[in-house]
Amino acid sequence: MAGSSFGNIYRITTFGESHGKALGCIIDGCPAGLSLDEADIQKFLDRRKPGTSEITTQRKESDTCKIYSGVFEGKTTGAPIMVMVENTDQRSHDYLEIASYYRPGHADFTFDEKYGFRDYRGGGRSSGRETIGRVIGGAVAMKLLDNMGIRVYAYTKSIGDVFADCATSDIDLRLQTKTAMPDISSDEKALRLIEKARKSEDSLGGIIECVAENVPAGLGDPVFEKLDGNLSKAVMSIGAVKAVEIGDGIMVSSCKGSENNDEFVAENGVKTKATNHSGGILGGISDGSKIILRAHIKPTPSVSKTQHTVNKDNENIEISIKGRHDPVIVPRAVVVVECMTAMTLLDALLLNMSARADRVMDFYRKI
Amino acid sequence: MAGSSFGNIYRITTFGESHGKALGCIIDGCPAGLSLDEADIQKFLDRRKPGTSEITTQRKESDTCKIYSGVFEGKTTGAPIMVMVENTDQRSHDYLEIASYYRPGHADFTFDEKYGFRDYRGGGRSSGRETIGRVIGGAVAMKLLDNMGIRVYAYTKSIGDVFADCATSDIDLRLQTKTAMPDISSDEKALRLIEKARKSEDSLGGIIECVAENVPAGLGDPVFEKLDGNLSKAVMSIGAVKAVEIGDGIMVSSCKGSENNDEFVAENGVKTKATNHSGGILGGISDGSKIILRAHIKPTPSVSKTQHTVNKDNENIEISIKGRHDPVIVPRAVVVVECMTAMTLLDALLLNMSARADRVMDFYRKI
Amino acid sequence: MAGSSFGNIYRITTFGESHGKALGCIIDGCPAGLSLDEADIQKFLDRRKPGTSEITTQRKESDTCKIYSGVFEGKTTGAPIMVMVENTDQRSHDYLEIASYYRPGHADFTFDEKYGFRDYRGGGRSSGRETIGRVIGGAVAMKLLDNMGIRVYAYTKSIGDVFADCATSDIDLRLQTKTAMPDISSDEKALRLIEKARKSEDSLGGIIECVAENVPAGLGDPVFEKLDGNLSKAVMSIGAVKAVEIGDGIMVSSCKGSENNDEFVAENGVKTKATNHSGGILGGISDGSKIILRAHIKPTPSVSKTQHTVNKDNENIEISIKGRHDPVIVPRAVVVVECMTAMTLLDALLLNMSARADRVMDFYRKI
Amino acid sequence: MAGSSFGNIYRITTFGESHGKALGCIIDGCPAGLSLDEADIQKFLDRRKPGTSEITTQRKESDTCKIYSGVFEGKTTGAPIMVMVENTDQRSHDYLEIASYYRPGHADFTFDEKYGFRDYRGGGRSSGRETIGRVIGGAVAMKLLDNMGIRVYAYTKSIGDVFADCATSDIDLRLQTKTAMPDISSDEKALRLIEKARKSEDSLGGIIECVAENVPAGLGDPVFEKLDGNLSKAVMSIGAVKAVEIGDGIMVSSCKGSENNDEFVAENGVKTKATNHSGGILGGISDGSKIILRAHIKPTPSVSKTQHTVNKDNENIEISIKGRHDPVIVPRAVVVVECMTAMTLLDALLLNMSARADRVMDFYRKI
Repeated sequence: MAGSSFGNIYRITTFGESHGKALGCIIDGCPAGLSLDEADIQKFLDRRKPGTSEITTQRKESDTCKIYSGVFEGKTTGAPIMVMVENTDQRSHDYLEIASYYRPGHADFTFDEKYGFRDYRGGGRSSGRETIGRVIGGAVAMKLLDNMGIRVYAYTKSIGDVFADCATSDIDLRLQTKTAMPDISSDEKALRLIEKARKSEDSLGGIIECVAENVPAGLGDPVFEKLDGNLSKAVMSIGAVKAVEIGDGIMVSSCKGSENNDEFVAENGVKTKATNHSGGILGGISDGSKIILRAHIKPTPSVSKTQHTVNKDNENIEISIKGRHDPVIVPRAVVVVECMTAMTLLDALLLNMSARADRVMDFYRKI
Repeated sequence: MAGSSFGNIYRITTFGESHGKALGCIIDGCPAGLSLDEADIQKFLDRRKPGTSEITTQRKESDTCKIYSGVFEGKTTGAPIMVMVENTDQRSHDYLEIASYYRPGHADFTFDEKYGFRDYRGGGRSSGRETIGRVIGGAVAMKLLDNMGIRVYAYTKSIGDVFADCATSDIDLRLQTKTAMPDISSDEKALRLIEKARKSEDSLGGIIECVAENVPAGLGDPVFEKLDGNLSKAVMSIGAVKAVEIGDGIMVSSCKGSENNDEFVAENGVKTKATNHSGGILGGISDGSKIILRAHIKPTPSVSKTQHTVNKDNENIEISIKGRHDPVIVPRAVVVVECMTAMTLLDALLLNMSARADRVMDFYRKI
Repeated sequence: MAGSSFGNIYRITTFGESHGKALGCIIDGCPAGLSLDEADIQKFLDRRKPGTSEITTQRKESDTCKIYSGVFEGKTTGAPIMVMVENTDQRSHDYLEIASYYRPGHADFTFDEKYGFRDYRGGGRSSGRETIGRVIGGAVAMKLLDNMGIRVYAYTKSIGDVFADCATSDIDLRLQTKTAMPDISSDEKALRLIEKARKSEDSLGGIIECVAENVPAGLGDPVFEKLDGNLSKAVMSIGAVKAVEIGDGIMVSSCKGSENNDEFVAENGVKTKATNHSGGILGGISDGSKIILRAHIKPTPSVSKTQHTVNKDNENIEISIKGRHDPVIVPRAVVVVECMTAMTLLDALLLNMSARADRVMDFYRKI
Repeated sequence: MAGSSFGNIYRITTFGESHGKALGCIIDGCPAGLSLDEADIQKFLDRRKPGTSEITTQRKESDTCKIYSGVFEGKTTGAPIMVMVENTDQRSHDYLEIASYYRPGHADFTFDEKYGFRDYRGGGRSSGRETIGRVIGGAVAMKLLDNMGIRVYAYTKSIGDVFADCATSDIDLRLQTKTAMPDISSDEKALRLIEKARKSEDSLGGIIECVAENVPAGLGDPVFEKLDGNLSKAVMSIGAVKAVEIGDGIMVSSCKGSENNDEFVAENGVKTKATNHSGGILGGISDGSKIILRAHIKPTPSVSKTQHTVNKDNENIEISIKGRHDPVIVPRAVVVVECMTAMTLLDALLLNMSARADRVMDFYRKI
């Protein structure tokens, strides 16, 4: 209820603020016997950590994680897995000024309204650093999915008006480019656009696309727990996301049934879909084809350009936000989208085990 | 877990299939002492019922609801409220044929994969009739919100490429037009487009927009239970929705921070936002301005045009779907979007009562 | 949250009041493909229905159930199963008097305090008729457990100071005696005791014991979701239960470790326990031996003997409760304890399917 | 779902094993603005820490806690509060031997059955050290309850056959005696009994009673979320508890309605109950009088007396458990019962805020 947990069977509960002592996550319900060590998690955290290129905040954090529980002799035990990253480069005094006013596009105002006051240091709980807990949870989910042959990957589809060519690319290129685009030439174009935005004291947004391959048919429930409903919540709960699309997404509202339907075809006794407008989900349940979703990310609200706003004394003031900010948050959010998708799929996969009476009986007959 | 419940404090659990005996809903957690009778619910059900115009299915259902529990002497008692609508115009034999094959764009295939077989009569649980339970739950939520001065309304923003002029219109016009557009001239254009689609044996999609006015600031939680995250799930869980936008939605990915930020202004000691690109939500929490969201609805998958598909014996076949179908589902889905939004807001509103220790203490001091 | 749901994967949500139109239950999360018809449920409802002997209330209700959804061609479909029993013998005018005062031992006072008013007809939602929903949910759970060879049965262990001889008895005798004791001679003694209580305008309590055989080891979680914790809640949530024991129960507080420990023994390569003081649960997890619990039921609070109480105007008054009441509720509560136990076990059994990574992978490899 | 979380609105999620790096707890949903520092928590942890007297294990742990998140400038912020205690005196090599066999009365066997293997060091997750997380969560709940004038306290009622005189005693004596009995002379008797048990290489159990004073009427829900149901689960989920009683508890099954009913009386316009057999709960809802419950604790299963058991190779063996164990766990479990009760009450108190429509409207009118 209280808002820091995600998932049902595979459930994470996260904690931590931008300038507190630490951030982290308890993973509860991870099946026992999965090989796991810190390196499995660190490689995902490294993709979101700050300071890795000129287009990210210059805050210096190694974001090194440590497992505190739930793993014994290199394997998950079924007990809750607590993983923590300590903050090391807090500069809280940088934030004393913003304590007194409300930054446009930030959660300063709504936190004050809800809780009566706020931890103003770097955004506190509403900081992008909150996603460390999500990445930890996603990394562990990914390990199990990977063992099952399920592959989940996201990449930057666009920044501003620069769109990557995703169709023909080697998807692993996204791990090498600064923008997380899987396409070198678009990456370069986007970097120039970002540089231009930064010079004009402004910021940019973009689109992240995520694909899941080899997902078994049958995941998700028909009504409120539709797989696409849960994916939407998972992705929309990432700060800065303002729209989520599944499959053809916003295109569907302007096309015809005959164009949007995916016909089924049988070849050698195997059913497939001739197209995949649905993005791998029909009636809220995975259909066995690729799951595809897109998140639209707003431009970073912290811009150094002068803005008007209001302070706590209800005076109209002018501000210019300095400090260490990302001119575009998209590249670092890619792994977060990937992780939220992975956890949603894993949870649906575990829930689905009890869908059929014959399989339940079969399961217990064998153990 | 099991997928037929929605909400935390204010929670509905729905039941029923297209051609079963009945459909309905248990509302649990509705605060006691709210005046309620069947007419409060019926007026919402009437907006989604079939057969009201030439652009809806010709199935004849009065969709008359009856309250079975939870109301005593005209008021909710705090006990669960069960409301049911009996099916009267089932023609299950119409569906014998589709039992043998998989309709493109429908959930036939995924239900068989998940459950091993399916109730094929009119889509069973995956039918649009499932939304009767949602409308019942939403109607009751709306009654309480209305008492608090909170107004929630949705309308058709587009059908195919016809967009309504929503800005200048009298929003109650949406209750009079067949398309649920709040604009007579667009309504007429859209009706012609629908007629054309039907003649070409095809179907259309569209966009529904929903607005909530006078929502208190502070609803929603900062991380996984963000108000926009929950709204996304609420709306994406309606069959046929493939994308959800909050505020400026998909536009944010291509604009700049200086354009997308909403500046705060103080006038006579009251803080407001000069613009509302955020759609009334900042950091996952309502900011006191209008909440705005949009749902993109796919064209009805049932088209009479010939389609290729596969039957249970894995043979490639050609089909033409006859029967009683809506050429566009958008007009009847408007009230469903409204209801899902209302329930999400009410649940967040009830949860938010415990956000501050001083208010909790104050509450109990007074009772 | 809202209090009318029970269970996680296999979850019921109940509705209805003593003198409302109907009572019933939605079962969500029941695995698909289970054979089910009304008779499967009716046989359990018949064990709790009123008017079957001189020691139950004389209210005449056939408690006939009807399935409204979730079953197609004789099998559960995976969709929610709604089952309802209509009330037929309401005599609400009998209750006008009690609307004005607070019956000792009843929930009249606490309902008024919580909700501001109450449905006073026969106790409304706090009536024992509320258990109809529990029995429906339990009957369906029992069908699946039965298919898996798991046997759950409860019986009356004592009424007042009359204890049944349960050890040597044919357990099915409990279905034939009016007291639900599995022992004819104790049944007779207890009937005489009940008759005596009734004549002295008083009522009696008793103990119900429940046993589950052939439960696989491994059900339940180690900390908050211990199997015994969940069984306690399940049983304590039945009105009139004031204590719950697992295995040796209250005896353990006065015995020694060497007496209370169950030694393990191996015979022909099979591990068993030499004794079963633990009642089949160790560390919150089933150990493969018989699960045993006991519920202590308070005497019916409705007695015709004169009692002092207070009315709504805060006046001290004397009352004598007439009307149709059970002099002892124990015999009719036996099936309710059985049903709550069955649902708790089934839910734990479904949850346990995801406990091990290798079994999860194995499950999906095969489908 | 996954078993390490407790509560709905006020929810804790715990982690950690006996011989892992650390144990702790995330508290989510704590209302913002509550004064809190480590000392508030430490005073509760000190009551359960080991090594404080000759009747507890000699493991040396200071159990010093540290707050990692959720508190800013001395107040809770509404964000999750992570509190951790590091282990310092692990002697895991002591446990290598028990890795190979199943200790009677312990969870060794059931963990292996459920998860396929186990962290055998000191019981791993099934160790009594798991309760550190419960005490952290309870201490914070207690701070808020205390601010509201609600007082929750538990004490040892019996050890073996020595019963404390609780009625006439100064309840704070329980904080001074080694047994946590509120009665010096019984404490001395019990200490002699424990010494005798230890010398005979055996262990003892006992009863803990918990009282909550000044709890508002109206907490708890009528059906599955009864306050007594939730208290039962809360307390039964503590390792070693085998029975839970509310109010008169097991006594009710053998008494008459006229004896067990609590008559209401009005004095100066205030309703009270003449007696409190119900233990402060009627129909699952608090009635404003003292809430009273009892937990029956089994004797510590680790005894040095020779026991028979089975090893992993299915051989019958004899064992004698050495190492650092409590001859009776009751005194250290007292604070755990108190904490579980406090959290259950706080959660019910927060949930109850939305019970009445008029109060909801009133709440929002004022903010």
